Amino acid sequence: MSALAPFVSAVETTHLVLPGDTNVHGTAFGGKIMQWMDIAAGIAAGRHCGGPVVTVAVDDLYFSRPVRMGDVVILRACVNFAGRTSMEVGVRVEREDPHTRQREHCLSGYFTFVGVDTAGHPVGVPALHPENPVQQRRFDAAKLRRTRRLQSRDAGDT
Amino acid sequence: MSALAPFVSAVETTHLVLPGDTNVHGTAFGGKIMQWMDIAAGIAAGRHCGGPVVTVAVDDLYFSRPVRMGDVVILRACVNFAGRTSMEVGVRVEREDPHTRQREHCLSGYFTFVGVDTAGHPVGVPALHPENPVQQRRFDAAKLRRTRRLQSRDAGDT
Amino acid sequence: MSALAPFVSAVETTHLVLPGDTNVHGTAFGGKIMQWMDIAAGIAAGRHCGGPVVTVAVDDLYFSRPVRMGDVVILRACVNFAGRTSMEVGVRVEREDPHTRQREHCLSGYFTFVGVDTAGHPVGVPALHPENPVQQRRFDAAKLRRTRRLQSRDAGDT
Amino acid sequence: MSALAPFVSAVETTHLVLPGDTNVHGTAFGGKIMQWMDIAAGIAAGRHCGGPVVTVAVDDLYFSRPVRMGDVVILRACVNFAGRTSMEVGVRVEREDPHTRQREHCLSGYFTFVGVDTAGHPVGVPALHPENPVQQRRFDAAKLRRTRRLQSRDAGDT
Amino acid sequence: MSALAPFVSAVETTHLVLPGDTNVHGTAFGGKIMQWMDIAAGIAAGRHCGGPVVTVAVDDLYFSRPVRMGDVVILRACVNFAGRTSMEVGVRVEREDPHTRQREHCLSGYFTFVGVDTAGHPVGVPALHPENPVQQRRFDAAKLRRTRRLQSRDAGDT
Amino acid sequence: MSALAPFVSAVETTHLVLPGDTNVHGTAFGGKIMQWMDIAAGIAAGRHCGGPVVTVAVDDLYFSRPVRMGDVVILRACVNFAGRTSMEVGVRVEREDPHTRQREHCLSGYFTFVGVDTAGHPVGVPALHPENPVQQRRFDAAKLRRTRRLQSRDAGDT
Repeated sequence: MSALAPFVSAVETTHLVLPGDTNVHGTAFGGKIMQWMDIAAGIAAGRHCGGPVVTVAVDDLYFSRPVRMGDVVILRACVNFAGRTSMEVGVRVEREDPHTRQREHCLSGYFTFVGVDTAGHPVGVPALHPENPVQQRRFDAAKLRRTRRLQSRDAGDT
Repeated sequence: MSALAPFVSAVETTHLVLPGDTNVHGTAFGGKIMQWMDIAAGIAAGRHCGGPVVTVAVDDLYFSRPVRMGDVVILRACVNFAGRTSMEVGVRVEREDPHTRQREHCLSGYFTFVGVDTAGHPVGVPALHPENPVQQRRFDAAKLRRTRRLQSRDAGDT
Repeated sequence: MSALAPFVSAVETTHLVLPGDTNVHGTAFGGKIMQWMDIAAGIAAGRHCGGPVVTVAVDDLYFSRPVRMGDVVILRACVNFAGRTSMEVGVRVEREDPHTRQREHCLSGYFTFVGVDTAGHPVGVPALHPENPVQQRRFDAAKLRRTRRLQSRDAGDT
Repeated sequence: MSALAPFVSAVETTHLVLPGDTNVHGTAFGGKIMQWMDIAAGIAAGRHCGGPVVTVAVDDLYFSRPVRMGDVVILRACVNFAGRTSMEVGVRVEREDPHTRQREHCLSGYFTFVGVDTAGHPVGVPALHPENPVQQRRFDAAKLRRTRRLQSRDAGDT
Repeated sequence: MSALAPFVSAVETTHLVLPGDTNVHGTAFGGKIMQWMDIAAGIAAGRHCGGPVVTVAVDDLYFSRPVRMGDVVILRACVNFAGRTSMEVGVRVEREDPHTRQREHCLSGYFTFVGVDTAGHPVGVPALHPENPVQQRRFDAAKLRRTRRLQSRDAGDT
Repeated sequence: MSALAPFVSAVETTHLVLPGDTNVHGTAFGGKIMQWMDIAAGIAAGRHCGGPVVTVAVDDLYFSRPVRMGDVVILRACVNFAGRTSMEVGVRVEREDPHTRQREHCLSGYFTFVGVDTAGHPVGVPALHPENPVQQRRFDAAKLRRTRRLQSRDAGDT
């Protein structure tokens, strides 16, 4: 398995917020947006490792603006880091003004997956090869989050 | 309203076929794929005219290969033609092999929309400016389909 | 397999347009109506051939009136034509005024299916036996559409 | 408001049981079938009274056979009785063998609705005029159920 | 199989009524609430018998108040009676005022299940051991409903 | 607004994993579980502040075991911390063995909400009053996460 660059597995997906996707306030229901993010991120991870993946963690998911009914939303998912069996994928969600086609950032988050075989056991995944300083910075930040994540799981109390 | 090129409104979206999207044969249920196509096409039409749109026709939608459970599917929607109030959008659906990332064409179709105001009445839409021979050929073919469509509506019997 | 008349497989189905079926304008979302049409048409085709079917084409689907939130909609699907392995089904969608019970035509379209075996390979289907002039006219029109469809697939560019 | 015969408001609807409608056993999930019954019954009640209705009771809903994945199911809903503001609708669900087109009874039940105005207050509904002995017997049985229902509500303990 | 008390299998579940769960009046769609009740009741029955169950009957389901969009609804399901292979579960649905946290009863009903093996055949279920007068009264009332249910199935006409 | 103890707003909800909730591996689709968690957490936050809330962040969501098709899953949501306008809610998800009724931890996560008025602007929320050492430890840990969250938003790069 040779190392892969992030662009190889990058995913773009576009949704329209219909009434069935909204909450009581007429904005997109948070749980539905997370579902769209999980799918986009899972597709990116699956492309990177060339096989099935399962979600193992979600971190630092922040909403900065609501997504409204009728908004076109664009999700971009990109593998930030790959370890031995796990991959962290960053997902960015933007809404688009239909008149001006201007986009505004709404929320972002990090989804971690492991590659699995047909019995559901973890399998090795290709390394990630960052190709520019932005990708390198994301790689380093993802590595830090992973360390923090492993520590807090050991100390976990919910 | 100045004329717009097709790339301005082009849409790409990526879905994963989950068990809830399948039919009795374990392949993606045709009606679900059409729903995804209608949304992608409607977003492209909405971007072109900068406002709300409604579906008025679907033509020449052909399946060449089944979309299977677990497949990553990529939809691309592009405005082919714009008349006074209507726009024809071509949608192409491909499935992707998770191991090789090779893509195969599964189905295509043409969706026609009209731009509407808040009361649902048709409104004028910007002209389409094809920028290369492929886009020009699609423009001409869409114009022919539109003539045929108007004729068969006049002679309609269902 | 003896020839079957169209009434043998005709389907009627009735839906209520709930808020989760609507788009941003408060009318029924086009993709949802197409999903209902695909199911009704698939049931008619399955009854005609007595086994599983898959959607292979959709043609000449035209909306003449919007379907609104709260509308009762009636779908009628009827096999128009049967070839060696394929069947064309016409679907007509009407909305009903709850006070007067008057019905208005909203959209129609033609869905083509092939009969398949459990491995998904095409299988022969019974002939269709039109029983009156209206059914004969639909049969002939469907035959023409099929010729056009086969031609445009050969010349296909999407 | 003149009295209406049961056929005026009778509803037939046809569904296909897809994987997303099933439970863990591969048969149709009971809650989904009840949802389809409630819609069919509500359409019949809405046709009878010519306006909006709300569900107030469900009685004597018995499953005699499971509905299986891939089954075509036919629901028939018919107003059995109309009081001052309430209507009882009987719903019968059958599954159809795709090869023989034989139908088998799967479940039945009685749904009671009241007609409401836009503020949700009960309004008077037309009388029901049974036209044959079967309809008269259903009318009488529904009247008995209604008496029993009113008694058990008074004595209610859940 | 030793007898089990009702508390062993009691289920509490909490839902939020989103726009996709509503009907045309802006209140929760009856069929959706019944779906939630069937799931809660089925979980209670499955806990009681320690294996898979299927719905066989629904009785005496009465709405006393509408469930509104945005309402928090609390469902409580409790096994009232267990026979040789069947179990009756009572389900009570309340809505909660978000400001005062006061709860109001909205609807109740009785769901009957049978325990099944992997081939779908009925299997014996543990006896129910009522532990207080309220549980005993529910047990006796459920036994009466069961007698009535068996009688009306014999005399059934839908 | 007087301070409230965590038990006042605690939520328990119980779901059954149906085929429509699963992914390609036959286990519950991660995005669906997150949707259930977001709803349970939002109900807890809404109870604490007595009004509408919107999701603003999700942190430290870790899967330790897959949730399987047919599993009964129990979600428990509890307010850990309340600031001026925001509340952190911990959600714990367990699966239950149907035969032994033993429960196993599957995943946990922290959801942060802000209380909003009808125009969507943040409003003050009641203080949280931890009543025992476990609740105090959760309160302190949530406070630390909040500090970290505010820092990483300032330094954010996705």
